[in-house]
Amino acid sequence: MNMTNVKQPFIERHIIMTPGPVEVHPNVLKAMQSPIIGQFDEKFLSLMDETMEMTREIFQTKNHWAYPIVGTARAGIEALLSATLEPGDKAYVPIFGRFGHLIAEIAKRTKANVHTSEIPLGEVYSFETLKKEIDASNPKVVAIVHGESSTGMMQPLKALGKYCQKQGIILIVDAVATIGGTDFKMDEWGIDGAITGSQKCLAAPAGMALISYNKKIESIINAREKYDQGLDPNSINDRMISSNYLDLSQLQAYWSPKRLNHHTEATSMLYAVHEALRLTLEEGLDKSIKRHTLNMNALSEGLKAMGLHAFGDKTNHLPTIKCFYIPKGIDSVAFRQKLVNDYHIEIAPGFGPLKDNVWRIGALGYSSRKQNVLILLNAIESLLLYYGASINTGKAFLAANKVYKK
Amino acid sequence: MNMTNVKQPFIERHIIMTPGPVEVHPNVLKAMQSPIIGQFDEKFLSLMDETMEMTREIFQTKNHWAYPIVGTARAGIEALLSATLEPGDKAYVPIFGRFGHLIAEIAKRTKANVHTSEIPLGEVYSFETLKKEIDASNPKVVAIVHGESSTGMMQPLKALGKYCQKQGIILIVDAVATIGGTDFKMDEWGIDGAITGSQKCLAAPAGMALISYNKKIESIINAREKYDQGLDPNSINDRMISSNYLDLSQLQAYWSPKRLNHHTEATSMLYAVHEALRLTLEEGLDKSIKRHTLNMNALSEGLKAMGLHAFGDKTNHLPTIKCFYIPKGIDSVAFRQKLVNDYHIEIAPGFGPLKDNVWRIGALGYSSRKQNVLILLNAIESLLLYYGASINTGKAFLAANKVYKK
Repeated sequence: MNMTNVKQPFIERHIIMTPGPVEVHPNVLKAMQSPIIGQFDEKFLSLMDETMEMTREIFQTKNHWAYPIVGTARAGIEALLSATLEPGDKAYVPIFGRFGHLIAEIAKRTKANVHTSEIPLGEVYSFETLKKEIDASNPKVVAIVHGESSTGMMQPLKALGKYCQKQGIILIVDAVATIGGTDFKMDEWGIDGAITGSQKCLAAPAGMALISYNKKIESIINAREKYDQGLDPNSINDRMISSNYLDLSQLQAYWSPKRLNHHTEATSMLYAVHEALRLTLEEGLDKSIKRHTLNMNALSEGLKAMGLHAFGDKTNHLPTIKCFYIPKGIDSVAFRQKLVNDYHIEIAPGFGPLKDNVWRIGALGYSSRKQNVLILLNAIESLLLYYGASINTGKAFLAANKVYKK
Repeated sequence: MNMTNVKQPFIERHIIMTPGPVEVHPNVLKAMQSPIIGQFDEKFLSLMDETMEMTREIFQTKNHWAYPIVGTARAGIEALLSATLEPGDKAYVPIFGRFGHLIAEIAKRTKANVHTSEIPLGEVYSFETLKKEIDASNPKVVAIVHGESSTGMMQPLKALGKYCQKQGIILIVDAVATIGGTDFKMDEWGIDGAITGSQKCLAAPAGMALISYNKKIESIINAREKYDQGLDPNSINDRMISSNYLDLSQLQAYWSPKRLNHHTEATSMLYAVHEALRLTLEEGLDKSIKRHTLNMNALSEGLKAMGLHAFGDKTNHLPTIKCFYIPKGIDSVAFRQKLVNDYHIEIAPGFGPLKDNVWRIGALGYSSRKQNVLILLNAIESLLLYYGASINTGKAFLAANKVYKK
């Protein structure tokens, strides 16, 4: 390969109906065109402060600490878990899909003593089951997924949060697939730490994890505070967090008036996240949530009218990502490839054991709009007919339209 | 603060003559406007492969492994150090500024046994000193900064590299301030692992760390391989890397034909890095390096003609960032603030003990161009006169012009 001949690529515009990354809002892309300024410039500092304040609003929290980390969503999960868990600490991770396994994986790497439980894919936990496991394992931290994008399930959190609060247990929630697209009442539900990603309901590109945590977690972080020796030779702490890059004691000092010199903030991505948050609040968090629910309902009703069936416990479906059984005789890979080739539309395959059985269809962020839903329904209908599936024709649009008319 | 009223900010175009982040090349900004596509889309996979190939070229290496990590430069440093260092391993970190301290800090957090040495700011190490320290400490890994942006010094690496190679010692180099802007012959100099950042000589925004490593380091990573349990329940390894997010055994599997599902790649930032690499190779790596040297020379000669003096060992100045003593009686903070307010030009303060004595002036990436050098020289002259400094007037442009005329 002679790399001096590499061309500027042309990227086709895709309609992205997957769990993410999603289509970026056009105004977010525009915001990313702003010129670079230094990270300690007054203007940049005020953007940082506004970003914190807007992050609080979408997490529905009064926590002081609410800021993005330069890294993808799992960087945020790891930052919060490795700040709160020390070697030997007891943690409980209830698993109901791929991302529960990920939390357990990250927690184990902190050398915590991690208890896990598993339930069948397509289900969520009853509070009674969670309570039983918590009472038996007596953890310092419970960490759980809110929206499990591998199964399209949403775990109710309120009773769990109240119980953890009563027991003095720290509750950390992976809300990557939910915040901005469905209700997430961090304070009201008693959640101590939470994470979301830039590339889901916020409609920004991937590359930033937004986190928030309360005073309970802050006090642990403060007790483990350790600054770079190049900045403060006297900073010594036996309990320091093992990662320097994801050390929340340094990150919160960077996001405080101290403006501790830690990393070089990702300027353009911060512009993106600032604008994505601003657009969400301009639309109104409530309205953004309603839009996600409406579009997913229309999509579901359309697919149902075609004769497709949703996977998993119907009372706890995510309003942002849903799994649908693949009609008999359809080759999942070939179908999705033709959808990309002919329509430039992406949907996602099932995960792990569900790989050949379901499609995961998302409608998140800027991808969650009527136009996308209707185009996708028509395209799925056409290709299912093309591949000879036995479906009801001509019903999908009418069913979706009925949802929109309500 | 009522956040529903936050406005889309207007960001003034700054002329950035600091160690970074630097002005982003206009074509890089354009590339970031490309629509999002899924990270397993064929087109995206080919962009990833091209990015690897171009990364090899700018690192001047035939290493297979050469790819970006979603995170700032220190994420890359931490990823390489925590992959190669296991608890109790011996490491040697020669320090000659702030970023040497950072390497030592990160290395210590891996629980390695870290030996450090320090020399006065403004100096670099002689090979003899390095050899003596290595022979005495017998490390598994030597980790050192190439371009120390806190002092503007560049450490010669060739003799060190050859010696480490002979001794079977792993040499890891922080080349954040140098790759693309000065020669960095990874293979020829015997360097096993190296890191650079997107926001320096490559003229992309901050948020990506580019790394490369050879088979010696790969074999350690392979021996520590551990995939998420949600992907492979049988993946168990006592020697696993403590970070999941920065685990190079998973990252290299993601950047291999396996395409291991690890993180959601930062789409727009990958577009940026791909285009930044492409532009560097289109200009020609040699020409890019010559441009950096030329502009820094012109800037230096201009400042010298004004009567300013460069800080530190003159035979080992960085061609990308240089420190200059602040003329007597000038308040560093007020001067830099007026430079931003009146001219929208940024230069950087000195670091740590040099804070009030020097300015750090960078000319990296797209910021390294004649226009910027000349504007900066005129502006510095005007403001030094405004603040009453005793300097030679009317000489700076002529001196810089002489360099360009050669």
